[in-house]
Amino acid sequence: MKLVCTQSDLSTNLSLTSRAVPSRPTHPVLANVLLNADAETNQVSLTAFDLSLGIRTSFTAEVLESGTIALPAKLLNDITSRLNDGEITLEEEATSVDDVGGEGIIVTLTPESGRYQLRAMGAEEFPELPTIQDSQALYLSAEVLIEGLRGSLFATSADETKQVLTGVHLKVQKDTLEFAATDGHRLAVVESTNVSPEDAPKNDTANELEVTVPAKALRELEKMLAHSSSSEEAVALYFDQGQIVFEWQHQRLTSRTLEGQYPAYRQLIPASFERDLALDRKQFLSALERIAVFADQKNNVVKVSIDSAADEITLSVESQDIGSGRESIPAQISGEDIDIAFNIKYLMEGLKALPATEIVMQLNSNLTPVIFSPSGGLKMTYLAMPVQLRE
Amino acid sequence: MKLVCTQSDLSTNLSLTSRAVPSRPTHPVLANVLLNADAETNQVSLTAFDLSLGIRTSFTAEVLESGTIALPAKLLNDITSRLNDGEITLEEEATSVDDVGGEGIIVTLTPESGRYQLRAMGAEEFPELPTIQDSQALYLSAEVLIEGLRGSLFATSADETKQVLTGVHLKVQKDTLEFAATDGHRLAVVESTNVSPEDAPKNDTANELEVTVPAKALRELEKMLAHSSSSEEAVALYFDQGQIVFEWQHQRLTSRTLEGQYPAYRQLIPASFERDLALDRKQFLSALERIAVFADQKNNVVKVSIDSAADEITLSVESQDIGSGRESIPAQISGEDIDIAFNIKYLMEGLKALPATEIVMQLNSNLTPVIFSPSGGLKMTYLAMPVQLRE
Repeated sequence: MKLVCTQSDLSTNLSLTSRAVPSRPTHPVLANVLLNADAETNQVSLTAFDLSLGIRTSFTAEVLESGTIALPAKLLNDITSRLNDGEITLEEEATSVDDVGGEGIIVTLTPESGRYQLRAMGAEEFPELPTIQDSQALYLSAEVLIEGLRGSLFATSADETKQVLTGVHLKVQKDTLEFAATDGHRLAVVESTNVSPEDAPKNDTANELEVTVPAKALRELEKMLAHSSSSEEAVALYFDQGQIVFEWQHQRLTSRTLEGQYPAYRQLIPASFERDLALDRKQFLSALERIAVFADQKNNVVKVSIDSAADEITLSVESQDIGSGRESIPAQISGEDIDIAFNIKYLMEGLKALPATEIVMQLNSNLTPVIFSPSGGLKMTYLAMPVQLRE
Repeated sequence: MKLVCTQSDLSTNLSLTSRAVPSRPTHPVLANVLLNADAETNQVSLTAFDLSLGIRTSFTAEVLESGTIALPAKLLNDITSRLNDGEITLEEEATSVDDVGGEGIIVTLTPESGRYQLRAMGAEEFPELPTIQDSQALYLSAEVLIEGLRGSLFATSADETKQVLTGVHLKVQKDTLEFAATDGHRLAVVESTNVSPEDAPKNDTANELEVTVPAKALRELEKMLAHSSSSEEAVALYFDQGQIVFEWQHQRLTSRTLEGQYPAYRQLIPASFERDLALDRKQFLSALERIAVFADQKNNVVKVSIDSAADEITLSVESQDIGSGRESIPAQISGEDIDIAFNIKYLMEGLKALPATEIVMQLNSNLTPVIFSPSGGLKMTYLAMPVQLRE
């Protein structure tokens, strides 16, 4: 194996793949990134795999000699990212007795100044990335995918014992795409029209799909897509037997999917509402951030009082020990006055994710689900359960 | 107590003083900031004191009623920093039975929107900041003080059992100012000409001073001075009986000083050198940063080989387990070739702090102190002890 590439190509691709390198590998070879260099196509691919999440990226280089080898991911990434811009030569040493005096495979990295030698491992020990055969691809627009992930990922559960809730539930239909996430206390749903790029094959009606994908993998997908050159490109999606694969340009992300029945979240969203409010999102959020200083001391509970005569809502927290806080913000209100209490953290996280200047808050009573949604733009629904108000 | 001030004045001054609020107060009142409002001068001062470090700042406000009160520092700071720009009214409630239903002192904070009530404490419990009487002030230029702290603070010891080494040793003479710090492995000394601002009183020869001040207090001093409007102003320094006070504009920082004999560091710096090198600081530093990736695995030891024929020095690390790294950088060398080894962290920290493009490295043998200094500009000396080279 011998190749010449630029520092920026190697460094960028290493840092992308490194996200699938486990921090505590169960097997030594998993701490490596698999480098494959092809002299025929002048393509270099890098692969990392923690046995659940797999990432493969590739880039163009001058490949003088084909080969595949497993290189220590962290060490190679740490050095490469600190090198100046310029050309780098990577070469597998023919001899098995190295400068360092030991035996084994040695790869020499030669940037414009300096010279680094790394102990490498044979490619044969590195596990294969899962591939999906006999599955027709679904095509999603990268932009729609990014929006959907932004509006749902934050609401997944961090509690590993709640398996299926640690993922985002993805529902792909002919022209629509739905992302849902819930941790049992709140729910976020994003519905998109999936406008595939014109040059991508159209999705077949037979290709409908429902799957729950771990949040960890989707967070990496979101980062990789945000790094990609064009947000209008098509991402191909393959799904089979507990595995899902996202593929675009020269990048691929594979992940196991989560087992178990995803909650029937649609039935949690009320069909009609007795009360309806229009609010400025940023004003609401910044008042909550101040009130949160007190709510921290009070089980995070904030009281929201709807006052239709004054056309405002009042947020308040009272704590015996430290004091009290109260803020009012203007609102367009239809429906009767009511006091309702929330966990302030769920309220703030939902408001942060809603992609709109003005939002709509809809509710029935003070113990039934409350819905927040953007007025206009992306179709997103955020549901927060009220909490009991203890005076 | 009643006053009206701007959000930015209150917030800025609270965040400065809050640095002297202990995170785990030994007495409840120390978690507070003492607010003093004077209707005659329209000045408000804020004081925090952890019994070692004390900070007092003051600002102008419309004081409607004089008074002194202890307010919960973190809570007040958290709310104030989240408020929008605008006027804030702070008022001590006349009644001792508050909204919250308890008894005690309540302070109401009324920004342009909202209303916050905080439980406060009486001023009488708050300890007095140490004051220094019968000591004539020394005047230092803020700019010189900042430069001296930047060049020395990083070399102090973090080991609390080495008391006197956790501080910076300050030596003030008529026209000179010297800062020294060492942790036993390396030493940083900055010498400045203390050009006092013209309008400041001249220092008296009688006012010579040698004192060791805790790094923690000096880090806060550095931040406060960096925030101050003018770097050319004079800082008054008072010293007495284990206490030191820095005072400028409306700000004051007091600190206990460290007891114990400071090492006679001057005698560690060799008087003459057999070898003398001129190097580009950034080039040296970035090569070290890459080599450090390997040195991490090898007790942080880097070998520096001086090659006068090639006009370069070579940095190298060899590790049996992971590989090896080598970088050469050009140097102007006088003296014979030699190999010498360092703890790479000490080398990097020193190079980061040296305020110059080109630096000078001076040494005798590979087991005696090595000196790094800027060529031109600030007079700074950085001494690093070599380590034994194990091949």
